[in-house]
Amino acid sequence: MKGAVLNQIPGQLEIEEISIDNPTGDEILIQTANAGLCHSDLHFMEGHWQTRLPAVMGHEAAGIVEAVGENVQYVKPGDRVITCLSIFCGSCNFCLGGRMSLCQNFSATARPKGAAPRVTNKDGDSLAQFARLGAFAEQMLVHQNAVVSIREEMPLDKAALIGCGVTTGMGAVFRTARIEPGSTVCVIGAGGVGLSAVQAARIAGAGRLIVVDITADKLAKATEVGATDVVNGAETDAVEAVKELSGGGVDYAFEAIGLKKTVEQAWGMLAVGGTATVIGMMPFGETVEIPGYEIFMQEKTLQGSMMGSNQFRTDMPRFVDMYLDGRLMLDEMVSQHLPLEKINDGYAAMQRGELARTVVDFG
Amino acid sequence: MKGAVLNQIPGQLEIEEISIDNPTGDEILIQTANAGLCHSDLHFMEGHWQTRLPAVMGHEAAGIVEAVGENVQYVKPGDRVITCLSIFCGSCNFCLGGRMSLCQNFSATARPKGAAPRVTNKDGDSLAQFARLGAFAEQMLVHQNAVVSIREEMPLDKAALIGCGVTTGMGAVFRTARIEPGSTVCVIGAGGVGLSAVQAARIAGAGRLIVVDITADKLAKATEVGATDVVNGAETDAVEAVKELSGGGVDYAFEAIGLKKTVEQAWGMLAVGGTATVIGMMPFGETVEIPGYEIFMQEKTLQGSMMGSNQFRTDMPRFVDMYLDGRLMLDEMVSQHLPLEKINDGYAAMQRGELARTVVDFG
Repeated sequence: MKGAVLNQIPGQLEIEEISIDNPTGDEILIQTANAGLCHSDLHFMEGHWQTRLPAVMGHEAAGIVEAVGENVQYVKPGDRVITCLSIFCGSCNFCLGGRMSLCQNFSATARPKGAAPRVTNKDGDSLAQFARLGAFAEQMLVHQNAVVSIREEMPLDKAALIGCGVTTGMGAVFRTARIEPGSTVCVIGAGGVGLSAVQAARIAGAGRLIVVDITADKLAKATEVGATDVVNGAETDAVEAVKELSGGGVDYAFEAIGLKKTVEQAWGMLAVGGTATVIGMMPFGETVEIPGYEIFMQEKTLQGSMMGSNQFRTDMPRFVDMYLDGRLMLDEMVSQHLPLEKINDGYAAMQRGELARTVVDFG
Repeated sequence: MKGAVLNQIPGQLEIEEISIDNPTGDEILIQTANAGLCHSDLHFMEGHWQTRLPAVMGHEAAGIVEAVGENVQYVKPGDRVITCLSIFCGSCNFCLGGRMSLCQNFSATARPKGAAPRVTNKDGDSLAQFARLGAFAEQMLVHQNAVVSIREEMPLDKAALIGCGVTTGMGAVFRTARIEPGSTVCVIGAGGVGLSAVQAARIAGAGRLIVVDITADKLAKATEVGATDVVNGAETDAVEAVKELSGGGVDYAFEAIGLKKTVEQAWGMLAVGGTATVIGMMPFGETVEIPGYEIFMQEKTLQGSMMGSNQFRTDMPRFVDMYLDGRLMLDEMVSQHLPLEKINDGYAAMQRGELARTVVDFG
């Protein structure tokens, strides 16, 4: 089968003939239907982060269960699933404390050391699965705790987005920040994650819902999915504009880009007592600078949201329901479909800052 | 009557003969019994912060009601009260939303513009009341929403400490961070605020309760009031030491000094998913630097605590009860009593980093 492999950092993806093992124990073999192009892969391809190489990239996918290991009771062949990188061990303090997206117990859901690799290249060498998923491949071999079963009616190209970007953005609003209906919200960044945060804020009943981006197309899309106001940060001082629109500052700001400047803007646009939630993935080694006196004097909060603080077995089926009942607009978020062979074109568009989400269609 | 006035920044306090008006409307005239020396006054005296001058300094006091304005029903002459700078208007979103320490509606509890000043010097010039209290004076004239009535049995020198430092430290634990019993806690700084946070953590059932300071005397005091472990930051890398003691990081860190370095240490010593609460008052204009990837990847939180996120009419009587039933150790926190005339000696000791709290005794 074919997969998109990253052989060096920085580097582009290379489409290679690769092999995948059979499921054993708690593993599931999935026929990948669709995989979304998420900015996180790009962070690694561009060299801002490191990962084990060579690796099958991709981590936002949906597909159909093809075969299961002998311990798997949760799904059976033919079931539709979304994968999630928040693979839970199900027995640590985080998993049992409602914070499963922070599970650090990676060995519990990995193949035993010394076992054959899950994925190999044509020379028989082991390939890493990026984010323990490796979704840019026609098949995925993952632990059963990396998937959630979903309704048959759900189109898998839309389901794929829920696998990372949608859950990350919506979870930041629903689970990390837990905004109150009527509260004022600003989302910085109107890519896939940001637009998901906007939609979550709309669904959760936000009052003034302001979106900041530097691309007119993205701001138009933000309005389409629920923003009440948009601010073009390339044309105006975003912090001042948001403060003016919100009467002095927002209750909740969400940073969905991953830049020092925009994290600091998220902090700066808060009302007294407000909370800035960082969803974006800042380059490794960079810092943000926060005015010390504002921390205590204005009792502001800066918090991170790891994959939307998800409990994905609960959350993703809810997001599927929200899509099918019309409240979550995913069709509007997919800007193009590509075959795996053209995946680098999708990342090039992302690097140019073009609109929203590319989805890879498999077979 | 006598008061300690700050005439220039930076500068020392000067004991002056001053006059105070009669209470009108919602005002209360208090015979000051005791006032604590808190580091915040020193921040202004040293020039790290600005305030209107000349000002009667002091903001941590207890006393006896001497007279009340015609609208006051809450207390009567003879009642014992603690004052608090979190003067609440009682009608804004913060006051009614459980966050009264963030009330910004200062005009609602001030004298009307154009009215005679509350406090004047011997030339008849207006004196500011620091923190709208001006506690380093034999009498205080304040809005009734600046006081809480307390039990007769409470010694007023101990009650004074509750007026700021104790409430700030305990509130950060009980109200801002809301630690869970058994959670791991580190408090950085074992002055009056830090020792109060330590005691709150003990009372709230913290597990490992680690205190960091650079003074052996203060660390001994921290152990006396409840620390399970102490770390001398002058002798060892505090972050590494706390991580080792707590098995990888603490659930909750409290910064009770107000320095860039120690705020960054509080962040650095957190476990995955942990929360750093900043109580200390950083110099105006200084920033803290936070590694971007840790925010989202480790889902850490940095939050401020303004005066312990207090609801002081509820909280302070509870702290009085905790003192009288023996759980809150305040006798151990008062290191010396001074007459008003020697107040600069108290601040000099504080500048030298000497032990805990000085209390001024009036009349």
